[in-house]
Order: sequence, then structure tokens, then C-alpha cells
Amino acid sequence: MPNQNQNKISLPVIKRLPRYFRLVHELKDRGINTVSSSELAALLGTTASQVRQDFNCFGGFGQQGVGYNVDLLFRELEKLLYSGRELDTILVGTGRLGRTISGFLASEATGFRLVAAFDNAPGEIGRALGQLTVLDVATLQDFCKKHKPQVAVLCIPEQSAAELAPTLLQLGIKGFWNFSNYDLAADSPGVTVENVHLGDSISSLGFQVRNAEAPRA
Amino acid sequence: MPNQNQNKISLPVIKRLPRYFRLVHELKDRGINTVSSSELAALLGTTASQVRQDFNCFGGFGQQGVGYNVDLLFRELEKLLYSGRELDTILVGTGRLGRTISGFLASEATGFRLVAAFDNAPGEIGRALGQLTVLDVATLQDFCKKHKPQVAVLCIPEQSAAELAPTLLQLGIKGFWNFSNYDLAADSPGVTVENVHLGDSISSLGFQVRNAEAPRA
Repeated sequence: MPNQNQNKISLPVIKRLPRYFRLVHELKDRGINTVSSSELAALLGTTASQVRQDFNCFGGFGQQGVGYNVDLLFRELEKLLYSGRELDTILVGTGRLGRTISGFLASEATGFRLVAAFDNAPGEIGRALGQLTVLDVATLQDFCKKHKPQVAVLCIPEQSAAELAPTLLQLGIKGFWNFSNYDLAADSPGVTVENVHLGDSISSLGFQVRNAEAPRA
Repeated sequence: MPNQNQNKISLPVIKRLPRYFRLVHELKDRGINTVSSSELAALLGTTASQVRQDFNCFGGFGQQGVGYNVDLLFRELEKLLYSGRELDTILVGTGRLGRTISGFLASEATGFRLVAAFDNAPGEIGRALGQLTVLDVATLQDFCKKHKPQVAVLCIPEQSAAELAPTLLQLGIKGFWNFSNYDLAADSPGVTVENVHLGDSISSLGFQVRNAEAPRA
């Protein structure tokens, strides 16, 4: 895989990669051998030139006029997205959302290894979470200094996230999967943030449904 | 609230509304009375002209040169986002994710009323979910014809979502909160889709963390 262009890949392209992978995975499962950029574009609701441009960021994947080999495309996208060593990951916040997300991480995500889970509630500390035992968040600094996890999943309230974020950055966390309402900004170089704002998502849905059904002025 | 412009509001503006609301809520809690568009912009990592332009879509909210009254702004944003009658909502898929999301809907979201939950697993049907009892998904059509819910939360696998979506659309569902991997496209007029693709989000995070730390070619 030529990767001389990888430092030029824009965030929107990166964000489209998992969708490409899911689609190509499906085509492969359906026994389809070749796919053109126009076919991919139609399935994704985008343009053929967008698809070609995106794939060019990663060194191509196909030959002009022949279409893409689905098997090859699958392997290359899989390598791009999921190869390399697993990322040691900690979970902060083991309430209902945290437990669900940790289950998702264990069963559905590739490339992450949950190495510790923290909470500050006496009722949570010491409880089992999969193979782990929930640790007191007061021990988080020591744990991170010793084990150097790379990714933190934040399933805590906004205020707690705001307070904890600088510490986690200082401890060398490179990636945040942030479910708190706190707008964690990736302003430190080399740090990645994926925000999943469930509250914003449902609020925006509600606004749109109400305004679509209301009679327009 | 003047709403003569509401049919011109673009999706990106709508998606920014909940963030504005959260921020203004926080300013209000901190006892701040007035805020300028530049101050809001700085807190949100955007530009003052963007803020003014966004607010203009909703009829203003403020006076040039005086800044915005935080209390008024809070009330107007709250009215925009959360006023009006509650939207009757059904949950499809009551596994771990579905149960967590329904808990979130009950405790954190405003303006939604969960009226029924469905699953197809014999072990789930008949189980309690909050005040509800999980119903057999085979009864979903009858339920929707009778009760006409407006919103469906999909916490089911991709294939099930693909199969169920046309039925739900036909039954008059106007808003989808879609946690399945299925790319539900809102191509029906008046239908709103909010996709929360946890798998895509974590895949994209993994890619970025791995590529940020790998030595560049």
C-alpha cells in the first residue's frame, strides 16, 4: 500500500473510509467481483469522481476503465482501517452508557483492547466489567503513567470530562471517543477526537420532525 | 419567535442549534447576562459572522452592537428546540444498545415519549423496559396503524434495518434515530434521519490514532 500521500488525507475522506469498507464488504459477501467507481458512487449517494479522488488519496486501488477488484479493495481498505497493533484503551465512566459502549468495543470494534475501566461512584468501583474490575478514577493517573494507554472512551458528564481532559492529554492519550456533552477540541497536535453527542443528535432530530410537520408560514 | 425563515434553514445550521443551546445554558448557569457574537464564536471555535448568520435564520435574537441577552437567547433556543408537543416514539431492538438508548431518551432527551418497544427475540418479547413491555416486532404494523407514532429508534442489525425501513416509512414514521449500520437515506420528503454510526466513528478514530503515531514516509 503506497502511503506517501497519507499525511495529506483530509478528515472528510477519512470519515468516509468506514462506509466504503462496509459497502465493499457487502459486495464481497454477495459474490460480486468487480465494481466501478460509478456503481460505488450510486450505492453511496455520491459521485464517481468523488470516489476516484478519495481512493487516489490512498494510492489508487484500481485500474482506469477496468473497475475495482472487490477482493483487493476489501483487503486494502481492511488493511488501512484495521491493521497494525491494537490500541490500548481505557473507559472512563462505567454507568449504563459506558457499559454498553465497552460491550460494543469488545464485540463490534476491531483494533482496540480495553485495558482498564474507571469510575468515581463507590457502587461502581470494584464491580466487574467483562474481564475487568472497575477501578477508582483516583488511580487513573498512576495507571496511565505505568501502562500508557493510547485511547480513552469518555462516558461521563460534561463537567467531569472538562475537568479530566487536560490530565488525560498530559498523560499521553492520543485518541478520545467522547460521549460526554463536553466539546473536547483536538487542538493538541497528534490528538484525535471523535465526539458522539447523543443529546445533540436527538435534539436536532426533534427539531426537524416538528418543523417538517408544522404548517409552513 | 418569527419563523418566516424556517423553511430556508439549512441542515448544518440546524445541527449547530443544540451546541448553541448547550453553551448558552452554561453561560446562564454561570450568571452571565450578555454575550457578543464574537464571544460565542470564540467559545465554539467558529466566527462571529457565522454566529450572526445562524441566528438570523431564526429571526435574530439580538441587537447589533449590544450583544445578546443570555436569558432571552436561552428561552428562544429552548423554544425552538424543545417546544411543541412530545413526539410519540417507538424503539425497535431492545438489546443492550436499545435499552441504553431508551434510558437516555427517558432521562436526557426532551420532547420524546417512548410509547412502545419491539424485538424479535423470544427472550426479549414480554420483558419489561421501563414502564413498557417489549412487544413482538410482528405486531409493529398493527401498533403503528393504530397509534401513529412519529419517530422510530432503530437499534437493530443492518440487515433488519434495511428490511424494516420501507415498512416504517409506509406506516408514516417521520423521524429515524438510526443506530444500525444501515445507511438509511432520507429520500422521502418530510422524513428526517439522524444516523449514529458507532462503528464508523470508532473505525475512523482508530485510523487517525494509528496514522498519527506511525512514522510518516
